Amino acid sequence: MRLLTAGESHGPGLVAIIDGVPAALPLGPADIDPDLHRRQLGYGRGARQRIERDAVTITAGVRHGRTTGAPIALQIPNRDAVNWERVMSVEPVPDPPAAVTRLRPGHADLAGALKFGHADVRDVIERSSARETAARVAAGAVAKAVLRVVGMTVRSETRVIGDIESTPRFDSDAVEASDVRCSDVAKSKAMVDAIAKARDAGDTLGGIVALRVERVVPGLGTAAQWDRRLDGRIAQALMSRCATVTSRAPGTAPAGSRVA
Amino acid sequence: MRLLTAGESHGPGLVAIIDGVPAALPLGPADIDPDLHRRQLGYGRGARQRIERDAVTITAGVRHGRTTGAPIALQIPNRDAVNWERVMSVEPVPDPPAAVTRLRPGHADLAGALKFGHADVRDVIERSSARETAARVAAGAVAKAVLRVVGMTVRSETRVIGDIESTPRFDSDAVEASDVRCSDVAKSKAMVDAIAKARDAGDTLGGIVALRVERVVPGLGTAAQWDRRLDGRIAQALMSRCATVTSRAPGTAPAGSRVA
Amino acid sequence: MRLLTAGESHGPGLVAIIDGVPAALPLGPADIDPDLHRRQLGYGRGARQRIERDAVTITAGVRHGRTTGAPIALQIPNRDAVNWERVMSVEPVPDPPAAVTRLRPGHADLAGALKFGHADVRDVIERSSARETAARVAAGAVAKAVLRVVGMTVRSETRVIGDIESTPRFDSDAVEASDVRCSDVAKSKAMVDAIAKARDAGDTLGGIVALRVERVVPGLGTAAQWDRRLDGRIAQALMSRCATVTSRAPGTAPAGSRVA
Amino acid sequence: MRLLTAGESHGPGLVAIIDGVPAALPLGPADIDPDLHRRQLGYGRGARQRIERDAVTITAGVRHGRTTGAPIALQIPNRDAVNWERVMSVEPVPDPPAAVTRLRPGHADLAGALKFGHADVRDVIERSSARETAARVAAGAVAKAVLRVVGMTVRSETRVIGDIESTPRFDSDAVEASDVRCSDVAKSKAMVDAIAKARDAGDTLGGIVALRVERVVPGLGTAAQWDRRLDGRIAQALMSRCATVTSRAPGTAPAGSRVA
Repeated sequence: MRLLTAGESHGPGLVAIIDGVPAALPLGPADIDPDLHRRQLGYGRGARQRIERDAVTITAGVRHGRTTGAPIALQIPNRDAVNWERVMSVEPVPDPPAAVTRLRPGHADLAGALKFGHADVRDVIERSSARETAARVAAGAVAKAVLRVVGMTVRSETRVIGDIESTPRFDSDAVEASDVRCSDVAKSKAMVDAIAKARDAGDTLGGIVALRVERVVPGLGTAAQWDRRLDGRIAQALMSRCATVTSRAPGTAPAGSRVA
Repeated sequence: MRLLTAGESHGPGLVAIIDGVPAALPLGPADIDPDLHRRQLGYGRGARQRIERDAVTITAGVRHGRTTGAPIALQIPNRDAVNWERVMSVEPVPDPPAAVTRLRPGHADLAGALKFGHADVRDVIERSSARETAARVAAGAVAKAVLRVVGMTVRSETRVIGDIESTPRFDSDAVEASDVRCSDVAKSKAMVDAIAKARDAGDTLGGIVALRVERVVPGLGTAAQWDRRLDGRIAQALMSRCATVTSRAPGTAPAGSRVA
Repeated sequence: MRLLTAGESHGPGLVAIIDGVPAALPLGPADIDPDLHRRQLGYGRGARQRIERDAVTITAGVRHGRTTGAPIALQIPNRDAVNWERVMSVEPVPDPPAAVTRLRPGHADLAGALKFGHADVRDVIERSSARETAARVAAGAVAKAVLRVVGMTVRSETRVIGDIESTPRFDSDAVEASDVRCSDVAKSKAMVDAIAKARDAGDTLGGIVALRVERVVPGLGTAAQWDRRLDGRIAQALMSRCATVTSRAPGTAPAGSRVA
Repeated sequence: MRLLTAGESHGPGLVAIIDGVPAALPLGPADIDPDLHRRQLGYGRGARQRIERDAVTITAGVRHGRTTGAPIALQIPNRDAVNWERVMSVEPVPDPPAAVTRLRPGHADLAGALKFGHADVRDVIERSSARETAARVAAGAVAKAVLRVVGMTVRSETRVIGDIESTPRFDSDAVEASDVRCSDVAKSKAMVDAIAKARDAGDTLGGIVALRVERVVPGLGTAAQWDRRLDGRIAQALMSRCATVTSRAPGTAPAGSRVA
């Protein structure tokens, strides 16, 4: 299976093409939208998350409720794109908006501007953005639908935020009920408090997320070649995710931290 | 540069993601639509070509008239999709259309049905279709925009159709003026006549197309490794194109031939 | 399955790594050496072919007569490497040999020298060489061993050399008995005469080879994505082979032609 | 750049092919052997490391002390292969050795045996082995030679072993002088003691290694596509390394731990 995604944070929307999905797999927006919704939850998310409420449109590869073996195309419109038409116009505009020139530390802003020669850092940040992960979450939901057929399940739980550490039980209901995806109610509240405190100090917090995959089919990956080892493949997928937790006090500059 | 395409022949449309296009390249629909239009010309094309009149929408990777280095997403709507909503519905439909079970020889129909286990061959032919090449033509127009920066040009001309052979001069105006893309006016007319005669006999004709690429930058590909040799890369790109020339007499079954 | 090869024409030898070969496949040098030998036959081959008599050593991926699922390493020593030690030395030599500066037309010489910035064209021609195909023939023999398990067979026969055209019957015994791999005895002799005549005139001849693959498993490749179509994959593999037919009259410059 | 490696732990040796190394790079065994030697150092390594003393032979891609642009082949013989000829024979042997059937926990043994259907787990462990990393270390030394041209340096230091934590200073001389690659002499001694204590208890210890890469060229990787992000690429490379630290008390079963 191959995946390419495209789409800017404030452009018309995101698109993903997933090549190589098996045929006859039951699939529809109802398998994808709940994960898009879960992505938008969580304490300390920016205001953006509240206006987005993503929904996927499948435009290729699925017919009458099942995959055909053809590449799957997923489209996720950006709901506030209408407000950004001049800034993000594909065509030149007579009165272009001012360039973004403030570089955020810990982001791809400086490296991207140097790599591509951009004077307007918006050309980097529109893609190097938490928004980009929405397309990956949608593609991940398709992958989960494939795993479901062989009985594999993937669950996650927050183990650490700042100084607060919990012991994951992977109790899905308790995890989903928590603002910080931690099944321990007291620890969950302590994590929320820690985030609020950091935000008030103009700071952010890191954390650790635990994953549990059950009923794994033997033989995924192989130790026979360096780039097909399962450990490495999983590590690449996880470490390439950039989840920016924005927790900002009024009047301060934006701060960002990367959580794997 | 990597390319994935998706989209069915009668679904909502085609989509292509092109990853790795250099930044700061001037690009807009005006660089792509003329090639989409040229694809729809030619004597003996089916009625479909006359209703399509494709136009691309760029939804990612281009801002204010130039590429940003982000992946480019191209969308080409299918203009008659509205007539196929029940047949191509992503969701199950209460009264599904009859399955297509007639297999066309010389197409991917049989192999695809066996490979993917389809009872309805429509699940193969919607993707194994001349329509799929529209997304590639659009992506090719982006590639040509890259080549233009370094001065490379790509021209083509029909050399042979059936028994009629011409000597390409690569005179673009004459080629574009010909119904069969042959710069020799007399040969061009003879080719049209040969196609008409074959069509009346319920048959099709093969042919040979010549390409000329000029001002080639030295160093494309390399002889150092089998799968990076330029000859092989070009051959793969050309031979993977399936252009179905439909030339059918009234009352006969559809016939198709593959032209490289 | 992935394949990388390395090795110069006059270095210590060639090496191929084939990744992804299924486990438990019966395999040994006896499955590979006959194809290396067949590669060295044929009328009009250079004197080099007579001294080579290649034999493979398997140094990884096979144990007790069967594959293990680990990557397979194949080594083919260059039998006359001892005569080239100074010319091909990995370490600097005090008295380096004169650079090769004569560029052969129709080869990668000029493009390679420009691409890599070589003053000594030997750095190109040692790799852009018919010798490189020996590693591919060995890897191909491994692929044939895989196909044998599912009953697929691959046969070939020369159809055209110069003006002489034959109708392939794919009679393996007759093909192997012919100096030019043509099962028609009279045509075979005519082809040999044509080559001899061209050689005496300081020229070379092109040709056409026909392949027949039988009992093909349905579902190889897919029409669903441009770069996985079987036609394109086969075309790439064939067109990336550079078989230099050296037919040279005494005292003339070397001439080469490329045959797909 | 592409890398494939092959070779079993007790077969004739390891081989790596590196495709895409730039031409004109100064390179020889003296650039690679020191890293192979460093790999064999360290307190608590098995007896195997003392007999190995690896040395590379470059058999392709380098001529007169510099790369040619052709793929590079590296060969690392297994020095004790002569003692394993019957066990590792490519050809069937009349009196095959007993199968290995004891599965080590925390290794690829069980998954590999199920994936490939092996009755003799040796067919897995010969490749899923710390020995495999020798080929990667050699390839990494070639990569370092490329980085050297642009001024990039890569340094590492042990930060944690078991409960002992040190603050890396990346002082190369002090790191190389330590048995556990820790620049703090007191902490280094404490780490050695902790390993000895764990070994006496039939146990192993995990740890943390810190890396510092300096003078990084901007633009490596890109945030524009999930699988080209630098974080993910580095994570894959690191997490796919399986360094088995064997620390075993006399009479106990082997124990292994994986260190990233």
